Formats: sequence, C-alpha cells, structure tokens
Amino acid sequence: MTNKAAVELQKVLDAIKPLDTEYLNKAQERLDKLAIPHGSLGRLMGFGRQYAAVRQNPMPKIQKKRIYTFAADHGVVEEGVSAFPRQVTREMVFNFMRGGAGINVLGRHAGAEVVVVDIGVDYDFPAMDGLRVMKVARGTRNMAKEPAMTRDEALKAIGVGISLAREAARDGVDIIGTGDMGIGNTTPSSAIIAAFAKAPPAEVTSRGTGITDEVLQKKIAVITAALALNKPNPHDPLDVLAKVGGLEIAGICGLIIGAAAERIPVVIDGFISTAGAVVACELNHFIQEYLFAAHLSVEKGHRIMLDRLDLQPLFDLGLRLGEGTGAALGIWLVEAGVKILTEMLTFDEAGVTEGESRF
Amino acid sequence: MTNKAAVELQKVLDAIKPLDTEYLNKAQERLDKLAIPHGSLGRLMGFGRQYAAVRQNPMPKIQKKRIYTFAADHGVVEEGVSAFPRQVTREMVFNFMRGGAGINVLGRHAGAEVVVVDIGVDYDFPAMDGLRVMKVARGTRNMAKEPAMTRDEALKAIGVGISLAREAARDGVDIIGTGDMGIGNTTPSSAIIAAFAKAPPAEVTSRGTGITDEVLQKKIAVITAALALNKPNPHDPLDVLAKVGGLEIAGICGLIIGAAAERIPVVIDGFISTAGAVVACELNHFIQEYLFAAHLSVEKGHRIMLDRLDLQPLFDLGLRLGEGTGAALGIWLVEAGVKILTEMLTFDEAGVTEGESRF
Repeated sequence: MTNKAAVELQKVLDAIKPLDTEYLNKAQERLDKLAIPHGSLGRLMGFGRQYAAVRQNPMPKIQKKRIYTFAADHGVVEEGVSAFPRQVTREMVFNFMRGGAGINVLGRHAGAEVVVVDIGVDYDFPAMDGLRVMKVARGTRNMAKEPAMTRDEALKAIGVGISLAREAARDGVDIIGTGDMGIGNTTPSSAIIAAFAKAPPAEVTSRGTGITDEVLQKKIAVITAALALNKPNPHDPLDVLAKVGGLEIAGICGLIIGAAAERIPVVIDGFISTAGAVVACELNHFIQEYLFAAHLSVEKGHRIMLDRLDLQPLFDLGLRLGEGTGAALGIWLVEAGVKILTEMLTFDEAGVTEGESRF
Repeated sequence: MTNKAAVELQKVLDAIKPLDTEYLNKAQERLDKLAIPHGSLGRLMGFGRQYAAVRQNPMPKIQKKRIYTFAADHGVVEEGVSAFPRQVTREMVFNFMRGGAGINVLGRHAGAEVVVVDIGVDYDFPAMDGLRVMKVARGTRNMAKEPAMTRDEALKAIGVGISLAREAARDGVDIIGTGDMGIGNTTPSSAIIAAFAKAPPAEVTSRGTGITDEVLQKKIAVITAALALNKPNPHDPLDVLAKVGGLEIAGICGLIIGAAAERIPVVIDGFISTAGAVVACELNHFIQEYLFAAHLSVEKGHRIMLDRLDLQPLFDLGLRLGEGTGAALGIWLVEAGVKILTEMLTFDEAGVTEGESRF
C-alpha cells in the first residue's frame, strides 16, 4: 500500500508548478491602470493578482466557494492536554450539521458552502447531508507512547484530501477554504512545527481551547516527550506527519496539495490548517504560491509557521477557534481583491485625469 | 446664523449618551455561553457586543447598510500639495455614478448602498441617481493664506451630515459607513490632527495620493504655515475644523454626530474619515463608543488619530484610497460579529459538553 500511495502522491506533487509570470504580469498591468493613486488599494490588489495567476485567467470570477472542515480525534487527549473531553469532537460535528456553529454562521456570511469531513472521528455518524464520512481510522494513537499514525494511514488521509480537491474541481469550485475540528489538535500542530523548525516546544505551544498554566506545562512536556520518543525526521515530511500529526491535519495537507494541482486557490484557516500547509509545502514548496493565509492565530506557533511559509496573514482579530472560521472571512477578502481587479474602471475607461502618483 | 446653528448642534451633541451597560452585559452573557472555547472568536465577539449596545437590542439584525461618501474641493491644492489636479474630484464623482470606482465595487461586495454627497465640489453636477447635491461652498479657501472655512460654513457642513444621519434613521439603515473624495484632503486631515495632538506636521503627514519627496516637504511646510497663520484653538474643535479642515471632513463629522444621536453604529474609513471622527469626539467624547475603525491607513498620522480616539482598527491591508473602501470591508466584518452573537448556538442549545476553558 505505502509504495503505491506514495507513487500516486508524488505524481500529484510533480504536477504542481510555480505560478505563470505571464498571468501575474497581465494582472499587474490592469491594476496599474485603475483610476486610483498607484497601488492605493494595497494588499487587495495583490490578492487579485495572485488569484488570477493561480486560475490562469486575467479576468477571473469567484462564483462557487467551499470550505472543507476535517474532523478527527486524537489519542494524545488521554494525556490530559485539552480543556475539553474527547466526545466534543463528535458533538461539534452534530452542531455543524445543525448549522449553529461558528463555521456555519461565517460560511453563510461569506457565501461559502461548508462540507464537513469525518476523516477520523471515534464515532459512527448516521448519514447526514453535508457530512462526508471518509474515515481513515477512529482517531490517532497517543503520540506520547507511539507514533500517532502509520505512514500508510498518513498517506491514506492525504489521499482523502486530494480526492476532495478533485471533487471540488469537478464541481466548479473557484476557491477553497480549510477548516478543522478535533479536540486535542493544537498538540500535534505544535509538535509538527517544533519538528520542522527545530524549535523548543515551549516556543510553539499555547493554550489551545483555553487550558490553565498547569495543563500548558503538561502539554509542553507531552510534546517534548513525543518528539524524543518518535524522532520524526524533518527531512521526511511524511514521517513528521505520521508520527506526531493528526488525521485532519493530513486531510488538510492533501486538500491543499490537490487544490494546487487543480489550480484552485486555497485560503488556509489558523494554526491547525497551517500545520497541514507546512507539511504540504515541505513536500513541494511551489504550493505556497497557491495559498492565502486568512489570519494570525492567538497560538504563538502560528507566526513561526507563517514565517516558514513566507505568508502574511490577511487579518488579526484574535481568533483561535478553528473550524475554518478565519478561512470564511479570508475567502471574502480575497474575493474583494478579485473584484478590484475585474470590476473597477481604468483611468481611460472612467475618463479620469491621470496624476503623477508614483508612490 | 452661527448662533442658531451652534445651538442646534449642541442639542444633538447633548442627546448622545454613553452606551447602556445593561445591553453590553446582556450580549456578553450570551457570548459567554456559545458552544466554543471561551472568547475564542476574539474581537468578532466584541463587535457584536458593541453593536447590540448601540442599538439597545440584544439580538440585532443588520439588514440595511449604507455608505455616505462626501466629495469636496480644497483651496490648498493651489499650493501644489497633491499628485492629482483639482478636476479629479469631480471626475471621480462621475466615476462613482458609473459604478466603476473602488467604493462601488466594495460597496456592492459588502451589500452596502453608496450615497455620494456633493458637499463642496467646484462643479455643477447634473441631476444623477445616487448623488445628493448639498453644496455648502465650491470648495474651501486656501488655508495657507486664510481660514479654509468660516465658522458658519463649518457648522452648515456639519448640519448636512446630521441631516443625512436622520435620513438614514428614517430609512431604517442599520449601519453607516463614511467615505471621502477630495483632491488635497490629506493636507487638512494632517493639519487637524497636528492641531489637536500638538504634533509637529512632519510626524502626521504622509504622501497622500503618492507625492514625491520634494512635494512631501512642501506639503509639510504648507501645513506648518497654515497652522502658524490661522492659529486654530485645539480647545475649540469647530475653530480647528473651520480654519484648517475641509467641507467633506465637516460633513463626515456631522454624519458621525447625527448617527450617534440616532444610535446607528458608524464604521469610519481611513485617514480623512478619522479626521472627521476626531473633531466629532472632541465635541462629545461618548461618540467614540458608537464607532468602529475599519482599517489602519498607510498615512502615518492615522495611528495618532486612532490612539487619540482609543480605537483599534479592524484590519490593515495597506489601503490609502479613501472613498469609503475600507469602511465597506469593515461593515461586513462588524456584521460577521453581529451574526456570531445572534446566529450561533450555545452549549445548551447545541448539546455540546462544556469544557473547562478559562482563557
């Protein structure tokens, strides 16, 4: 299994190329002619340019927006690293189905469909609209005692994400957001960035759902122990993902890889989604050009992840919920940038006198 | 005239009270019960709370959103302080009418109506849908040589803004955005904050539409000279506004005052709008509680204004266009916060186990 899946993954990774400068230049040319002081719409203009280049379309339109929220459980929760019990993962999936969670509200607000993916929840859900059951396992194993996943499981979870990106492409989705739900999942996310950045766990670990000082110290100790025990190899991204990652993180990683291969721009959410993006970009660093980082999370490891990816977050509103809530807002802001590129008039079109603006 | 108008203004100012803590507390109570780790939707939660308190409605709904973009000319442009010629003010008004400007695109994106107000453009517009001709004068006078406005003119322009806020209330507008168009208007905005904060003009003056180093030096010298000549009294906000302000800044100031009196929350745009907000808050400091600051402008004086108002911008995307473009995005983000308050389920409602989150 591993070999065949690994070969498949490599094929998808090899299909991902750097953005075509022709489209970047074409977009910039139009942006330079808009009837505004040069560059005065700031980063919004860059969002439009990047989006156009990913789509290879100088006048793109965002019509279909979709957020995939991956849910999974974590064996490491038995170490007592979270403020919430394990069953909350499945309870929140039911809340997503009711439409009453943060991601439902903000997804609706942004006009984005929310698809919830059970990639590893320790519960058998009944069939429900909007829930995709694509379970790879009933949660990870406790990384403080053994590897969280086998390499096979990690590859399989990445494959789930890739297959969803292909589905999105078939459905004509124009932009994808990522989201997560998994009690305990800031622990593997911190472990992943600690492994790649060779950072002391204390420097990349925060309070997740809101743990006390005491639990935070335990969480740091658990991550330190898991890294010492499993020795993930930072030069082998799949090894890191399998040993100290999570199933939803692997799913997000696969979704990002698949989306880049399909040339669908991806807005990554916060800390957990960015952990998936870090693994994806370690596998092929061109993927970074297909990504927008929605926001800066309160989790302190997030800044280190974003710096590693050379991504600047779109906003910082002190969010630390996950689910894809930041991605929903981010999708709408990227869309604003695309409309700046495509709906505004140029000096010529608007009959406005060009000044000597050169800022 | 001055006396009657001043008495009228004082009446409106006196009607503005601090936010009712009962509504702040009621909103906070609900936010505390939402099925998320405590406080994990960050500043979005505060937007919902503040909005509910301004509206005195624990479960408010934003249905009608409107941005007023005030356009006016500036006598000081003859000193050569802008990268664009004076006629661009009127040309941009025509562009607004065509729907091809940044504010049209972002207003549509946010679902907000855009009303353009000619409060002082040096041009006679034909009747056009979406343009309100409420001209107080055909631009200000050159503040480097004489006061920009008489006190009467400043009061009249404030009155225009107040009347528009009343109109908005009658029309059932739930949230108001401010915007500006006026070639040269970063110069009076810098002068206003320099006067109130007693800051050296060089510390609050930037490149506006994109002037060269040489023109920037001239702009700073012009502001310095205008302040020395007119001696605006920082303890008399109307004196500052009249002597070194602008007609659109006075209109925005009045709109903000009127909106607070009508308990309609206002999202202020960037540097020019915030200059109007500064004058409004100098007249009644409770007004600050009715405001959301959309974004941090590239203009360096903006941070000093926002600090003075004790407002934290919602985002920083390097915008420096004005028109209300930042306000459009800001309105949508505030609306997201309101929906968090009113559309999300609590732990009880969602059947989710409450954890021990205490962050």
